This record gives sequence, C-alpha cells and structure tokens, in this order.
Amino acid sequence: MPVNLTAPNPVDLLPIAGVRIGVAEAGVRKANRKDLTVFLLDEGATVAGVFTQNRFCAAPVQICREHLAQVNNRVRALVINTGNANAGTGADGLRRARETCDALAKHLNVAREQVLPFSTGVIMEPLPVERIVAGLPAALADAKGEASGAQWLRAAEGIMTTDTLPKAVSARADIGGATISITGISKGAGMIRPNMATMLGYLATDAKVSPAVARQLAFELAEGSFNRVTVDGDTSTNDSFILIASNQAGHAEITSLDSAEGRALKSALLAVARQLAQALVRDGEGATKFITVRVEGGRTAEECRLAAYAIAHSPLVKTAFYASDPNLGRILAAVGYAGITDLDQGGIDLYLDDVHVAVKGGRHPDYREEDGQRVMKQSEITVRVVLGRGQAADTVWTCDFSHDYVSINADYRS
Amino acid sequence: MPVNLTAPNPVDLLPIAGVRIGVAEAGVRKANRKDLTVFLLDEGATVAGVFTQNRFCAAPVQICREHLAQVNNRVRALVINTGNANAGTGADGLRRARETCDALAKHLNVAREQVLPFSTGVIMEPLPVERIVAGLPAALADAKGEASGAQWLRAAEGIMTTDTLPKAVSARADIGGATISITGISKGAGMIRPNMATMLGYLATDAKVSPAVARQLAFELAEGSFNRVTVDGDTSTNDSFILIASNQAGHAEITSLDSAEGRALKSALLAVARQLAQALVRDGEGATKFITVRVEGGRTAEECRLAAYAIAHSPLVKTAFYASDPNLGRILAAVGYAGITDLDQGGIDLYLDDVHVAVKGGRHPDYREEDGQRVMKQSEITVRVVLGRGQAADTVWTCDFSHDYVSINADYRS
Repeated sequence: MPVNLTAPNPVDLLPIAGVRIGVAEAGVRKANRKDLTVFLLDEGATVAGVFTQNRFCAAPVQICREHLAQVNNRVRALVINTGNANAGTGADGLRRARETCDALAKHLNVAREQVLPFSTGVIMEPLPVERIVAGLPAALADAKGEASGAQWLRAAEGIMTTDTLPKAVSARADIGGATISITGISKGAGMIRPNMATMLGYLATDAKVSPAVARQLAFELAEGSFNRVTVDGDTSTNDSFILIASNQAGHAEITSLDSAEGRALKSALLAVARQLAQALVRDGEGATKFITVRVEGGRTAEECRLAAYAIAHSPLVKTAFYASDPNLGRILAAVGYAGITDLDQGGIDLYLDDVHVAVKGGRHPDYREEDGQRVMKQSEITVRVVLGRGQAADTVWTCDFSHDYVSINADYRS
Repeated sequence: MPVNLTAPNPVDLLPIAGVRIGVAEAGVRKANRKDLTVFLLDEGATVAGVFTQNRFCAAPVQICREHLAQVNNRVRALVINTGNANAGTGADGLRRARETCDALAKHLNVAREQVLPFSTGVIMEPLPVERIVAGLPAALADAKGEASGAQWLRAAEGIMTTDTLPKAVSARADIGGATISITGISKGAGMIRPNMATMLGYLATDAKVSPAVARQLAFELAEGSFNRVTVDGDTSTNDSFILIASNQAGHAEITSLDSAEGRALKSALLAVARQLAQALVRDGEGATKFITVRVEGGRTAEECRLAAYAIAHSPLVKTAFYASDPNLGRILAAVGYAGITDLDQGGIDLYLDDVHVAVKGGRHPDYREEDGQRVMKQSEITVRVVLGRGQAADTVWTCDFSHDYVSINADYRS
C-alpha cells in the first residue's frame, strides 16, 4: 500500500510541445503488458542525463553516455523497455542495446546516436531484442501528435516494474515572460538509493536552455531529488534520470543558471523532480510510512548526508518505524556509525516531529514514551538530528522496512 | 532456527585456571532471568579489549577503555548485565556504570579501575544500577572456584539477548611445551557488523602473555573473526571483544607474536574466536542460511572487503538467498556499488560454490539456472567473486534476510 500516494489523474498532466509518446506490448518478459515506451522529440530538443554510479552498470547506461557525448545532447528519441535490465550481459548486451537504437533510428530516419536506450527488470538475462524491435512499429503508431495527459500516464504505466502505481507530475512556471510546462514520470520501488537505483525518471519541459545548462540542471536536479531518496540502500545498475528540454517555449534561451530565469526554471523543475522521487519512496517495496530524515548542525552537508543515510539505511531503524516502536536509540546508534570520525555524542539532539527525544546525547528529561509513540504511529514522520557542530544541513527521504519488503524481493522473479 | 548450530555441551567446555564465574538474576529488565554475570580473575591476569567504533558508544565502553589504560591491562573482574545497554544515557550513564564497578571493587577489595563493566540490551533507558548492585552478592556467591564447563555455559546463557542459543567454544593447544586451554563465549544475533555489533565476546586462556602481546592479540583476533561477520550492517554502541590471559600456564611468557609460540597461540585463539563469531551469524536474527562471501583477485584486501560487505549487506542479495532464488545479478550489482571506483566489470567472475555463474562480467555460457538453484537451496553457501585485478583476498560471513528478521526487530521491545 503506497503511503499517501494515488494514481495521477491524466487531466492534471500537461502536454509538452515537441514531445510525442508511444506505448506498446512487446512481450519482453510477459505477455499482455505495456513494456515498451518510446519518446519522440522534435528536432532542436536538448537532452541531458545522470546515470547510476554503479561500476557494474547496464549496457543501456553505457550506450546512453556514449550517445549523449557524441551528439552534444541533441537527442531525437528514447526507447524504454521493462522486464529485462540488460545488465550483467557483457559485450553481447551492448550489441543488443545498439541494435535497439539502430532499429528505432531507421524508423525515424535519424542517426543511431540520437537514440537513447533504457532497460529495467531482471538482471543477467539476455535482452530479447527481436521482440523489442518487433514491437517498435506499434509503439510508433501509438505516438501520434503531442503527447496528451493520457499518453503521459500510459508511459508512466509502461515503465513500471514492482511499482504499484504509476508516477507522474506536472507543473507550470513563468519564465522570461512565457508560461512553460513541465511533465515528468518516474518508476522504481526497490533497489532505490543515492547514485541512484532501479529508478528511471524522465522530466520534460518546453523551456529553452543551452546544452550546458541542460547538463548542469540534470545534475543539480538529480542531487536534490532522486539522489536523496532511499528504500533499501541498493544502487541499481540501470538508474537513469533524463531531462528533456524541447526548447519550444517563447522565452529567450537560458544560458546560465545564475540568472533570474535560470533560478526560476530550476526551482520549478526541482519541485516536480522531488515529487517524482518521493513518489518512489511512498511506493517503496512494502512501505507503510514515509520518513523525512533531516540532519542539521553539521560542519559540512556531506557529513549531514552521511548521518542521514546511515539512519535511512539501518534495518533496525526501519523495522522500528514499521512497528511504530519509538526505539529511538537505534537512530542515535546509526548516527554514531555514520563515519563522522570526530563526532562528539555529547552534542547531539534528536527530534521526532515536534517531540524532543534526546538532548546532548542522552534521553531528554521531559521525553515521554507516549509522545514518541504518538509520532511513530503517523504515516508521515520527520526525524531531525542536530549534530551541534556547525551550520550545514541535508535531508533524505525513506520508508520503513516491513514483512512485505521481504516477500516482494523473495518472490520477485517467480 | 539457527543454521547448523546447537547448544554447547558443558563437558566440552574447559575450565581456565585463574578464572571464576558467577551468574545471578538481578531483574534488570525482566524477572526470573539470568541477567548478571561476573568474571573474577586471579591476580596476575592480563586483559585486553577491542571495542565498537560507533561514535555513539555506550557508557560501559567508555569506562572499559579508561580502566584498561589506567591499570595497564591488569584487570581483576568483569561485570556484565543484559536487559539494558546503558547507551544514549549521557553523563548519568557514565555515573551508573562507575557505580557498578565501585560496588564490585568493594566486594573484591580491588581498585575500581580493575573492574570492567559491560551492558547489552535496550538503548536510551537509565541503567537500573541499584538492582545490579543488589544482585552482585548472589553472583559472587555463585563464583566458587575455577569455573566449570557448566558455569561457562551458564555465563554464555547469562549474556544472551535475542540469541536463541548460548555460544561457547573450547580448544587446547601446545605452546612452549605446555598444554594451554582456551574457552570463549559470545552473544549477539542482530545489530552485527564490523567494528562491531551488539556483540559481546570473551575469550579466556591460561596462556602467559605480556600486556603488549595481549593487546595486539585482541586486535588481530577481532579483525579475523568478529570484524568479519555481519547480520544487518548495524554497528552497535556496545560491542566489546575481550581477551583474558590468566597467565597461569607452565610455558615461558610470550613477548612477541612473531615467535613460534606466538604464532601457535594466535592460531589456536583465532580458530576459537572465528567459531564464536560465526555462531553469531548462524544464530543471526531470522537466519535460515550461513553464507561465506569470499572476494579474490583484488588489488588490496581493503577493496576485497568493501566488495564482500556490499554483497553481505545488500537486502536484495539477502532476500534472494532467503528465497533460494539464484537472482545472481544482484550480487554483481552489489560489487558494482561497493565503492571500487576504477573497477572494470568486464574482469569479474562469480561462483556459487562450484558453479561458475558469471565470466568477465556476463552470464557464463554454460551456466544453467538449475545449477544455481541447487546451491541456493543449501543451508551453507559460498559466494566467490574474482575481481581479476590483483592478488589480494578477504572473506566475510553473513546470513540471509527473512520475514523473521523483520518480526524479531519490529517486536524486540514488546
């Protein structure tokens, strides 16, 4: 059961000028399932991406990196399959990913390097490239005109794996006198963590940006959203976050994020990216609670992030949240092993929402278990740790760890 | 259900000259439970310890470090309570730990600094020091003469928390013409990981060693045993590994581990320490399988250890083991995010026992799922990863991740 997350309403999803979408059933792994999605972009679009830091990255991730560099971000199409991740597949996997791009490029009469491939699903099995190629005509036939909200929703469904709900968010913003639109979709429910996870995120806007700004935006948006969520600490081989700027809006091209227009655009995009990223946690495998972990008072944001992730990854902390058990010493213990080597436990305060649990490393004299219990029973909880050694802060979002997480991952392939 | 682990037979546990043990019911947290254990050491014993690296370390750990330094390892008594970890308790916790040492020192007519305190159990609740002090006379009355095998077993029971079985191991060795005895006990089933975990380990021998050798031995034994096991990746606030040398054996004092006697002693102690450490994994919370993760072919042992722990901590890998599902791409993915930044996935081989699963980063052409399945169904499994970039290797031991882990940790305090 997702935590305070419902399926998007297609009427809320904005078309993005210059972006067409088609979805088909290619039978990649199972029959009668939308498992092939194509994005078709008008000429002039700029695409930038941030990919998994996993050294064992999947073939499509390697190809995406190559192609983006080769065409200076001037991409014309994306092709996404679920059911098979094409990871752990060696040279043969690269060949199959290239074959997919070739086939789509031929249909569109563009260069192979202008196509980016994405795969998600089971690892270490050969990608059934023939079935994907055979499914392309149906996907292309489905991509008629500017994608409607309903088509965006179908794309969000088409990229799902263990997700229980499609994830899609839209927003508008005023940039340089023009109203721009933003629509994004994401998928991923397990293997979610920084840098990133079997997480796919696509954020499209008609805003007009230079390739350099698109690249910087993709990086900064990922840092502030998808790289701040974790379900289980497993970094996937396939994570990809893609920013598409169709460049069709009426404002002047943004060439710096340090301009008023640049800041406004980033802020609008970040709000959408963050909702998409948080949706992954809300739909996290077996999640029953959505937890915001904020660490303040650090010397650097980096050490705050270390502490926040130590809390967010601790199975003991996560099972305590699942049980609504205010066993809050587990949180302090996680801070203690986070790797801040000169941390003084005597400076640490801990809050659970408004409840002051620990002061200077010990239980707060006024803390009462029933107050902790009250907060722990909520479906949305903020853990706030104050390190008491500086001014930096960072925040990550996570979920609890339940029996269902084990069931889902013990049964995934069956 | 522990994995291939049974309760020790007291007739197999050797008395150690100069070591007395007493166990009592102090009602620390629950009534009618052996929760207070004292070790009494004859004058002349040497004690060395290795403690948690958690910055949020418990009061007794801080006191142990202080006392060991103050008396140059000439300790006369240990006092161990379960039910309450005295962690996250600030200055008041230190005071209570000192009070426990004071009370026992007074009974024994030794200095307070010659007593080491240990606590394990719930975090962030005040240690009921009055009940512990009130329980000391009963524990002391129980400590009559050199501890028998039955008394060692009672101590192993007396330090348990979520353990389902007591853990105790003995061995003999010939050192410098004398036969020495070794007996150790350990506890811990969750919050187990390197550096270390709610793990208590006590290893006693009558061998004769200098304080410097005792300190070096404690460190090296911990590195080769307790610092190579993990259940859930949570490092506890209270972990302590203690080596007691009663120095009563008939051989000449060992003043260097580089001597034949030093090597023989270390080897005999390490074998016992490793069994005690592996017993924690075999009795790991919810464990159904015992998994040896060996990483070879690394440039350094450190990078092999990083990769081994990434595998051993991955919830996705651990749930796949639980399900006997040869979803082995999850293992390669964990290697990929272990933090070896220049790792080439094209050089990696993966074996499951004798089955060659992946070669040069891709599925082995002869690998058949039923072969992987056969190994995954075993209760003892060796995962072997060959990085293909050097000669170094390291090994860690872990267990799978089951529904019961969640149940145990969601219910621990209730």
